[in-house]
Amino acid sequence: MESVDARRAVEELKELAALTGGPDGARRVCWTDEWAKARAWLREKLSEIDGVEVETDEAGNLWATAPGEGEAAVLLGGHLDSVPNGGWLDGALNTVAALEVLRVLAPQRRPVTLRLVDWADEEGARFGRSLFGSGAAAGALKPDDVRNLKDAQGVALPDALREHGVELDRVNEAGRQLENAVAYLELHIEQGPVLERMDLPLGAVLGTFGVERHAVRFTGQQAHSGSTPMDVRRDAFIAAARSAVAFRDDAARRDDVRGTTGFVNVSPGIVTAFNGWCEMSLDQRALDAGVLADMLRTARETSEGIAGEEGVSVEWAKLWEIEPIPFDEELIGLAEEAIAEVAGRSHRLPSGPLHDAAEMARLMPTVMVFVKSLRGLSHNKEEDTPEEDLELSVRALHGLALRTIDWAARRG
Amino acid sequence: MESVDARRAVEELKELAALTGGPDGARRVCWTDEWAKARAWLREKLSEIDGVEVETDEAGNLWATAPGEGEAAVLLGGHLDSVPNGGWLDGALNTVAALEVLRVLAPQRRPVTLRLVDWADEEGARFGRSLFGSGAAAGALKPDDVRNLKDAQGVALPDALREHGVELDRVNEAGRQLENAVAYLELHIEQGPVLERMDLPLGAVLGTFGVERHAVRFTGQQAHSGSTPMDVRRDAFIAAARSAVAFRDDAARRDDVRGTTGFVNVSPGIVTAFNGWCEMSLDQRALDAGVLADMLRTARETSEGIAGEEGVSVEWAKLWEIEPIPFDEELIGLAEEAIAEVAGRSHRLPSGPLHDAAEMARLMPTVMVFVKSLRGLSHNKEEDTPEEDLELSVRALHGLALRTIDWAARRG
Repeated sequence: MESVDARRAVEELKELAALTGGPDGARRVCWTDEWAKARAWLREKLSEIDGVEVETDEAGNLWATAPGEGEAAVLLGGHLDSVPNGGWLDGALNTVAALEVLRVLAPQRRPVTLRLVDWADEEGARFGRSLFGSGAAAGALKPDDVRNLKDAQGVALPDALREHGVELDRVNEAGRQLENAVAYLELHIEQGPVLERMDLPLGAVLGTFGVERHAVRFTGQQAHSGSTPMDVRRDAFIAAARSAVAFRDDAARRDDVRGTTGFVNVSPGIVTAFNGWCEMSLDQRALDAGVLADMLRTARETSEGIAGEEGVSVEWAKLWEIEPIPFDEELIGLAEEAIAEVAGRSHRLPSGPLHDAAEMARLMPTVMVFVKSLRGLSHNKEEDTPEEDLELSVRALHGLALRTIDWAARRG
Repeated sequence: MESVDARRAVEELKELAALTGGPDGARRVCWTDEWAKARAWLREKLSEIDGVEVETDEAGNLWATAPGEGEAAVLLGGHLDSVPNGGWLDGALNTVAALEVLRVLAPQRRPVTLRLVDWADEEGARFGRSLFGSGAAAGALKPDDVRNLKDAQGVALPDALREHGVELDRVNEAGRQLENAVAYLELHIEQGPVLERMDLPLGAVLGTFGVERHAVRFTGQQAHSGSTPMDVRRDAFIAAARSAVAFRDDAARRDDVRGTTGFVNVSPGIVTAFNGWCEMSLDQRALDAGVLADMLRTARETSEGIAGEEGVSVEWAKLWEIEPIPFDEELIGLAEEAIAEVAGRSHRLPSGPLHDAAEMARLMPTVMVFVKSLRGLSHNKEEDTPEEDLELSVRALHGLALRTIDWAARRG
């Protein structure tokens, strides 16, 4: 078996970081000159691989294709773009690891086609819409959804795209790239503490969480903290506090779900009165749609029970939702084999953040591999992973690609 | 026994409200023309009582004296000043009821002297320092404490005082007025819901609460709501929420204490992260200093235990404190007799808000009588009390004044 040079991939990651990052972190915000510089660097690297064709699609995604005996294609995806002052690994690891895998696999003609895709604007850092390129290719993003977005300087999204050769009204034509795709593979840093705490370098990802996000608003009656006895109060904050604890406790009963109170606003919010009004956010996540629906129902009922006990009313307003996107069971199995081969032991875990893989998983069998993040940090310059683990991750992606090519060939 | 004309007092309250209030509430903010107009109205009423001497002291307090056989003086206190858009009864009831009592009692020479005092600036509405006149007379307020206060328009407090004939550096000379005082009586609306809920018009006040007011700050570590499993979180808001509920529950075990969470601030306070920091206020009140100290100790220990369980740290910072100021047991007994005489039944209750009586209680035997507030509302135009209960309150103050004069005469 041809051997991947995992060390070279790590060195190339450092090369990219030196080119488009620095003491304040990565600067590869999409639709900027720094991002274009990173793209040019990648093109240069890809051009050195014999037999690989490189192109950019209508949504600004960069594709490198190593044609196989059949048109069916296995995709390896990543994104070079970063948040401002971002980390050196988020997105770049996937792309550079895929570059190395393509470099090793392209010279020999495979039963199926192998393609690298570097998605445009996964982070949405400049215009606020993440998963831009993958969403456009998948058809989930429509031009009208984003036409009026502006960046902090007031630049309109269509104008910024045009500077990089992308016409907003044509982005969905990138969907052609997915016509023969049969599997999508993505390596990513975990961005959470799970693998580090288990002292494992790698894990197979089960899918991305579904999310139910609500504003929960309690209304009682504010009054003076001295003149109002405890037993006649209708304290909206106490009802909210009890509910927040109950939401957390309910989510803590399972290790594959989340329940988070984020913003908390009270009124009047002064030292000499208890609060007649409190609004807080609840963000619930689960990999299973039924579990998520149960969590939401339980939380509503709990809050209503507590509100009744506290003499206040409660209203729920939906802020956002997305369904769980489970990855492919067979590919999860192949990922576990590839991980076990290089690291001895694997672990199955869900993904908290969304990834381009979520867009692909709606269209084709998909799986991700996570590599340990130190201290769970990402989206800042402290983001890091031990280099030996990065090397293991590149080797795991290689093994997973080989297995997936075989799997795709067997399926015909 | 000479009979008080309680109906007249209520009519005079309405007269004052018509003169210095309106659809938007009372306008008698201290050190303004409207307040001066109310004062002139009161002076006119007092001047009609034979044998009563009227004077204004160095702190702007107005005194009306009905000399008795001895120099020992029983004081009846109130304040005509209101908050902006205030109620018609807060402060004014005390003064107008005392006017009526003085009117009835002055014509006959009593064994002790009877004095009405209309305190200046009880509310502190313009410059933020309440209990101005009573504090100055008691020596608790020093000129240097307030010299630099300005109102919302930038007017300095000393300048505003001077417009009303008060020199800031001489305000403590008002202490002379208290030299022969042997008892202080004050009638006030309850400003809370207790008497209304018990369907009682009147209550005898046990004293004003001591207050321990702290900022309680929890520090954990914020992280992403999706990527961080529940069991590894160090969620500062959840620790705060549990503590707030515990503080409330502890206070709810007794009916003569309070425990209130007021402001609540979280960071980062966004939907996609749990909070690494939360600060909230705790305002604890009790009539007994030992009970208050126990409550504070319990709250600290509870918060530290919860913080430990949640993996966060907690710090307490004192914002303000005042000791409990109990009223005089014998005068409380006399107040109950006077209330029972006019209303059949009395109730003992603490005062949530502070009053001028708190300044006097440090210096002499003091008691207050509360009359029912509708819906516990005050400091706004909705503040109200049924007129029949106002009449009972004037009669109760009359009965209490008579009893206190006898009590003072017996003490010699």
